[in-house]
Amino acid sequence: MTEAHYPVPWTEAQRGRLKALLADDDLLQRTFAHEEARDRAFRDAERELVQKERERLARFRAEVRRPSLCRLQEALSAALREQGFLQVATPTLMNRSLLARMGIDDTHPLSRQIYWVDGDKCLRPMLAPHLYVVLKDLLRLLPHPVRIFEIGSCFRKESQGHQHAGEFTMLNLVEMGLDPARREEHFRRWTSLVMETAAITNYRLESAPSEVYEQTLDVMAGDPPVEVASGAFGPHPLDGAWKIRVPWVGVGFGLERLIMAAENRPGLARAGRSLIYLDGISLHV
Amino acid sequence: MTEAHYPVPWTEAQRGRLKALLADDDLLQRTFAHEEARDRAFRDAERELVQKERERLARFRAEVRRPSLCRLQEALSAALREQGFLQVATPTLMNRSLLARMGIDDTHPLSRQIYWVDGDKCLRPMLAPHLYVVLKDLLRLLPHPVRIFEIGSCFRKESQGHQHAGEFTMLNLVEMGLDPARREEHFRRWTSLVMETAAITNYRLESAPSEVYEQTLDVMAGDPPVEVASGAFGPHPLDGAWKIRVPWVGVGFGLERLIMAAENRPGLARAGRSLIYLDGISLHV
Repeated sequence: MTEAHYPVPWTEAQRGRLKALLADDDLLQRTFAHEEARDRAFRDAERELVQKERERLARFRAEVRRPSLCRLQEALSAALREQGFLQVATPTLMNRSLLARMGIDDTHPLSRQIYWVDGDKCLRPMLAPHLYVVLKDLLRLLPHPVRIFEIGSCFRKESQGHQHAGEFTMLNLVEMGLDPARREEHFRRWTSLVMETAAITNYRLESAPSEVYEQTLDVMAGDPPVEVASGAFGPHPLDGAWKIRVPWVGVGFGLERLIMAAENRPGLARAGRSLIYLDGISLHV
Repeated sequence: MTEAHYPVPWTEAQRGRLKALLADDDLLQRTFAHEEARDRAFRDAERELVQKERERLARFRAEVRRPSLCRLQEALSAALREQGFLQVATPTLMNRSLLARMGIDDTHPLSRQIYWVDGDKCLRPMLAPHLYVVLKDLLRLLPHPVRIFEIGSCFRKESQGHQHAGEFTMLNLVEMGLDPARREEHFRRWTSLVMETAAITNYRLESAPSEVYEQTLDVMAGDPPVEVASGAFGPHPLDGAWKIRVPWVGVGFGLERLIMAAENRPGLARAGRSLIYLDGISLHV
């Protein structure tokens, strides 16, 4: 908020353009004594923001050459493998029957957010069902505990209608067959490893009700705090459908949210897969 | 083929089980003097193959801890960035209008292989349309040549009905705004970089007609040789729809095919995203 409140705000077109150029809230809420002052301020602000994005793009080209989303995936994979986790890569399409085993049927709140494909398949809204399938075999074939993770796209229709917010990137890690007395300790250990790898120093845990797991332990980070991860413990009533009968701990992280919290930048769309932003840099300049 | 031809082949069930355990063709084609000999051979072969897969899984757990698919993605990204390529990450869902701009309408042969989602979107069958969108902006904002790539899942319905063969992993690299006289030289340079990174020493180029680009330069590798990549040059009639008017070279690689060719192992499903195989190791043992 500015201190003085003049009568003339940005026009809708000006506001839209400044937003696309990633103007901060202070600038978006500025008001002016008259239209001429406003239009002059708009031209200055636009030129400055465009220049800033071009400089960021030049740095991106000279230095990192890939989005934070890709860098973070690689760093998380290395950190988890170092701790004995095995990386798996399961299909993006998920069978309806696997969703049903997660308790997600037509009456479930999440069911309205599912993208259906070809009748009996959907775009996976979460990684857990496929991890259950793989774990059922791995628990039989490997010494316990078994630690696995997957990093990949998940899809949920968003009611807000934000472009491309329907796709996001999940890291889901699961440790099965561990000492049940150490579940919370391990939950904290793996969460801390991920947060450190994502360069987030400030976060807190929060108990919350869940549509799938009844109760979860959420990880809140950023300013203002957003939920960047959600953890659950087993044995759990859902396990029976997968014939899994060992204690476990699992945590799902939203990578775009981790990036937002680490870089303290607004707008989920900027961190995710996009045709308009490259590593959060606007290409419409 | 074995040398002696006995009258008794494997039963269908035995054959299916041996196939799932990744038996080679010699074993699958064995025949026997009588059923008792066959059933004894089956038990021996099954035990041996199961043991082999368990040993491979133990090595996977002790050593690499992630599928070749993930390792290759990371290695290719690093090698290309080293050469000045920028990595982009675009959405998995593609708008119908972008497909149409690639000349893929309802009468196009590829149209029968498209997975439609929510009416006007599809699972991208290729990366090129999204790369065109991003390149249109980058060509305006960066010095030429502009080099970009994306690595990610693409989707095509397969008529054969192989499970999960509908999803595969593409690397598409594009260099735009280069000297047109050096297009073939650069095509060979970037192809050689990718093949070397994928540890494929033996490959050849082959001209071929294309459903999208009219004419492509394909890369054949493996034994027997399969098409592991397909390249095209511009300016090209499709460019007009994207308002792109500079010379370019682009190559799309199938990562699962690169892995098959490098490791000389059969079965595309084993190299790809799967619920049954982990880094090509059967979990149904």
